[in-house]
Amino acid sequence: MSQFKRTLLGRLTSLLLSGLLVGQAITVTAGQQDDRYEPGRITYAHFNKDGQLLIPRNYREWIFIGAPVTPKDMNDGNPAFPEFHNVYIDPVSWAHWKQTGKFRDGTIIVKELVSVGAEEAASGNGYFQGEYLGIAATVKDSKRFADRPNNWAYFGYDSYESKSTAPQPDESCNTCHKENAAEDNVFVQYYPVLRAGKPEKK
Amino acid sequence: MSQFKRTLLGRLTSLLLSGLLVGQAITVTAGQQDDRYEPGRITYAHFNKDGQLLIPRNYREWIFIGAPVTPKDMNDGNPAFPEFHNVYIDPVSWAHWKQTGKFRDGTIIVKELVSVGAEEAASGNGYFQGEYLGIAATVKDSKRFADRPNNWAYFGYDSYESKSTAPQPDESCNTCHKENAAEDNVFVQYYPVLRAGKPEKK
Repeated sequence: MSQFKRTLLGRLTSLLLSGLLVGQAITVTAGQQDDRYEPGRITYAHFNKDGQLLIPRNYREWIFIGAPVTPKDMNDGNPAFPEFHNVYIDPVSWAHWKQTGKFRDGTIIVKELVSVGAEEAASGNGYFQGEYLGIAATVKDSKRFADRPNNWAYFGYDSYESKSTAPQPDESCNTCHKENAAEDNVFVQYYPVLRAGKPEKK
Repeated sequence: MSQFKRTLLGRLTSLLLSGLLVGQAITVTAGQQDDRYEPGRITYAHFNKDGQLLIPRNYREWIFIGAPVTPKDMNDGNPAFPEFHNVYIDPVSWAHWKQTGKFRDGTIIVKELVSVGAEEAASGNGYFQGEYLGIAATVKDSKRFADRPNNWAYFGYDSYESKSTAPQPDESCNTCHKENAAEDNVFVQYYPVLRAGKPEKK
């Protein structure tokens, strides 16, 4: 194989793995996949005919954006979300964020809750992730959630076996997100990956 | 476009984004890319001619495996690794782990350190990620690190501007990892993504 071809393959591979080329290829080949969103946008948020969000799959292979921890022992034994929150954004919305600094229509963000498994390790005292407890998700959709603040709706699943769930009322999640999140309902102030990935204003 | 083609495109797209098909395609097309590892394996750990590991790139788009936090205020102001440790494995080694439950030759794991930015938020008291502080990495290579415990070597970068760095002596990192990590020098006990992704024994 020529040096040029090998270099090109290396670059293509990097692009593919970074999800960028995939995002662009989709524009050409799979534009009809979900007409709820703009043509050419791959969809990670799937709804059933009753408007319930299907439980997300493979989100541990999406883009991780941050992991706050609200431990039981710092919240009188009963934090709102126990305890680590591993938070992910879908890869195409991540690519869009890197280009525009905005959350596209169809963005899905998953929050997976993980217990504290240890408070002491070879690296020191602290909090170390234990067992998975469950997931929640939020989707931005200006058509489907036209009346919701900033067009986000929030979903909590009873268990990993849940197939789908209806959106929560605004007062359960949205009100707090809108009031306290740094940017468009998302707690960007606690997600260094998003902050670092945001393009500089031109 | 026919329903069949659309379904197939959807499946292909998912596979591509999960990195699996990419890994397989590489077997055919880019097998010569780095002859230090087995043919057909894409390489994320790149070394210069002096055996220094080039500083990893794009690792925030790899697979996140866990985020312990060892806060200053729980470690007399001076934890070994301040403070959050966002840990990632390269996508091809992740695919290998899911298939075999082993770390392949060439595995690279990156630990990015992030300060605690807040200890109180709308979701409760705890630790919330602040600013990036630096990165460290480890690579398993049975040829290059034949004499190292379990064939892992450890690398710490002075800054994000570092181009490359030499491996640490075993007593700086490897000894503690070998002694305390649950599996093959990796603290799998604190990484739920790895535990859940490991195939069941047949």
